[in-house]
Amino acid sequence: MRAVDIILRKRDGLPLTTAEIDYFVEAYTRGDIPDYQASALAMAVFFKGMTPEETLALTESMMRSGEILDLSDLPGPKVDKHSTGGVGDKTSMILAPLAAACGVYVPMISGRGLGHTGGTLDKLESIPGFRVGLSLKEFRTVLEKAGLCLIGQTPEIAPADRRLYALRDVTGTVESQPLIAASIMSKKMAEGIDALILDVKTGDGAFMREREDALNLARAMVRIGRGMGRRVAALVTDMNQPLGRSVGNALEIAECIDTLKGRGPKDLESLSVELAARMLLLGGVEDRLEKARARIRAALQKGSGLRRFQEVIELQGGDPGVCDDPGRLPRARTTVAVRSDQDGRVARIACRQIGLAAMLLGAGRETVDSRVDPAVGVVLHKKVGDPVVEQEPLATLHVNDERRLSQALELVSDGIQVGASAPQATALIRDVLDP
Amino acid sequence: MRAVDIILRKRDGLPLTTAEIDYFVEAYTRGDIPDYQASALAMAVFFKGMTPEETLALTESMMRSGEILDLSDLPGPKVDKHSTGGVGDKTSMILAPLAAACGVYVPMISGRGLGHTGGTLDKLESIPGFRVGLSLKEFRTVLEKAGLCLIGQTPEIAPADRRLYALRDVTGTVESQPLIAASIMSKKMAEGIDALILDVKTGDGAFMREREDALNLARAMVRIGRGMGRRVAALVTDMNQPLGRSVGNALEIAECIDTLKGRGPKDLESLSVELAARMLLLGGVEDRLEKARARIRAALQKGSGLRRFQEVIELQGGDPGVCDDPGRLPRARTTVAVRSDQDGRVARIACRQIGLAAMLLGAGRETVDSRVDPAVGVVLHKKVGDPVVEQEPLATLHVNDERRLSQALELVSDGIQVGASAPQATALIRDVLDP
Repeated sequence: MRAVDIILRKRDGLPLTTAEIDYFVEAYTRGDIPDYQASALAMAVFFKGMTPEETLALTESMMRSGEILDLSDLPGPKVDKHSTGGVGDKTSMILAPLAAACGVYVPMISGRGLGHTGGTLDKLESIPGFRVGLSLKEFRTVLEKAGLCLIGQTPEIAPADRRLYALRDVTGTVESQPLIAASIMSKKMAEGIDALILDVKTGDGAFMREREDALNLARAMVRIGRGMGRRVAALVTDMNQPLGRSVGNALEIAECIDTLKGRGPKDLESLSVELAARMLLLGGVEDRLEKARARIRAALQKGSGLRRFQEVIELQGGDPGVCDDPGRLPRARTTVAVRSDQDGRVARIACRQIGLAAMLLGAGRETVDSRVDPAVGVVLHKKVGDPVVEQEPLATLHVNDERRLSQALELVSDGIQVGASAPQATALIRDVLDP
Repeated sequence: MRAVDIILRKRDGLPLTTAEIDYFVEAYTRGDIPDYQASALAMAVFFKGMTPEETLALTESMMRSGEILDLSDLPGPKVDKHSTGGVGDKTSMILAPLAAACGVYVPMISGRGLGHTGGTLDKLESIPGFRVGLSLKEFRTVLEKAGLCLIGQTPEIAPADRRLYALRDVTGTVESQPLIAASIMSKKMAEGIDALILDVKTGDGAFMREREDALNLARAMVRIGRGMGRRVAALVTDMNQPLGRSVGNALEIAECIDTLKGRGPKDLESLSVELAARMLLLGGVEDRLEKARARIRAALQKGSGLRRFQEVIELQGGDPGVCDDPGRLPRARTTVAVRSDQDGRVARIACRQIGLAAMLLGAGRETVDSRVDPAVGVVLHKKVGDPVVEQEPLATLHVNDERRLSQALELVSDGIQVGASAPQATALIRDVLDP
């Protein structure tokens, strides 16, 4: 088998066999196929796509390129959630403790933010002392004790995907649905989970702006998961305004703690509850969605989600005191308010712009090497449809470094539009894929 | 400017600016853009093509990546010929001496054979002592004295093309018309020529099997040449049977010598005369095609082409005695005849199969690293349309190494089809592009 012949087949629109895909991924992981052949193949896949069978084979091959966790000795279902990322998307820190409190193990391996989107690891690291870089052994120990564990990519998990993803990033081959689906699923399936709930974001602040693209990606991932014998469902959810009110690492952790105390923003709470409830259902802890929702709500009200979160923070080296006193989280030196210049209702919040503003303030990464400031970000005081009066604050910027403040300010004040009447409300959950 | 943004623009079907193309080629030549980005761009070009403006910019950029010969001090027009290659295609050794004998300088830089096609350099090297690896300084000296010089690629000429071509070969991106056109023209335009005649082959034994593809490639190259201020014309010529009768290096040199003596195969002679005549016309030595043809024919009859060939062989270190005594060329140990099993007329000669048979005997390269045997090959005794009687020899194989003889024999005997009646004759010159 020769790499160039595999590239030619794909280029000419012929489907690759599982043997060809295995050969390519294995030789690439060993370093026997060079990057320049992998990037040519990725570009051919961008144009010619992959069948469901090819996408499944690619996922399995990339998964097998590294370690596959065996958590079968843990006495309960192992269920994870994956979100395709957005602005203010912080459900992991809420749903993982809630699901764990209801009897599901949540072995969660997350990523970092890039561009206008935030990343779970950056948020967690804003908690003083919190370590996301656990070994797989430590990961298992924390998971066993707390019912959840929140860590970053390790070199042992799906190294083929790690290498290919870095290559795609610099060769214009990121936006390929089968490659995206296989990348996500190869890592998730290596976590040793029984089931997975997917939160595929759509809209201005999401990777997939069009609902149809999000739906197709969701379908592809559900198909892969089932092809690998796991229970997988997906929600397509709206990302046309930030989720919750806070965008920025410590600010978002504070909002998660509020939410786990029952006083978070409604949209954030309801999506977190819905995703957690579906984790119980997929894990077989409950057999009806209504009952699962009620159980998650009860855990929220009793504070058992908050206690789990406190526990996992402590086990991962963080300061659990942040849950009682969010003032222990890093805080920015200055705040700057953006006020409305008219009476009316919020007509639109340009989601991507808010994310970019937070990035410019230092909350996110412009390139993978940028350093993140845990304290800074943007807090929205109004959401789409809310009434406003002139001079009322629409948002507050939390600032440490003024150099790009004016740029960030412009993005936020330009991004929150106030009009005479409220726009038609958009459902937060656009589609449910749970066939 | 970032390489990945250039890849993305091309991937998304946007034309690249000259500045973007220059940046990419220059940085790639310096080694600042890695192969994996160049191969991704090449694959995007395969799918999205290039406008004439982009193709011209790419050609100029690749040409400027190395040395550009200045032959302006030579007292006469500098004109070259380029053929896209085929089986038995040996016109260079005939037309270059003829054109030189009529007052045109022919500074010819050629390539080697690969797969079923032969290469001018391999043919020349079958002449004992002949050196194709002259320095550019020696090249100029020989050119000045003999009016022609026949050498191989030098590291100084278009290094960007050299690197990109090697990359395309292993990344499934060879078959892209703008990349082919730019590759050919960047090298030819660096030769310091005033004009160029292109011989674009079409048919079973050619790179472009379809006449329409050959025409499009010819048009693209003519456009580039004119865009760079040179006089360029093109012929699209038939490659559905080998040109002349001999396929294999020394065998082809012997046929060239025969042709320069006025006793070569008619198809080979007439195409060589036609191309040489057009070189005189493009070079301004003659102003009418009929006069140019007559002048080339006169040079052929007087033997001045042969004398020039003898001269250039001597100047390039070869044995000029081969012109008087072709027995001094290397000869194979054995010959094997392929005979007709019926009376009739030759209906078809599978051109690519004959080329592959010669390659299997050792006349060509299966991979770029293969060694070539100068003596071996295939000689056809019949061409399409010729009458045959049962047991008459159709072809002779010249053999040194019997290991793949049976395979070669099968290709030749299977490839020459004899039928009851002659097929309709195909014109050797299919199209003329000389607007």
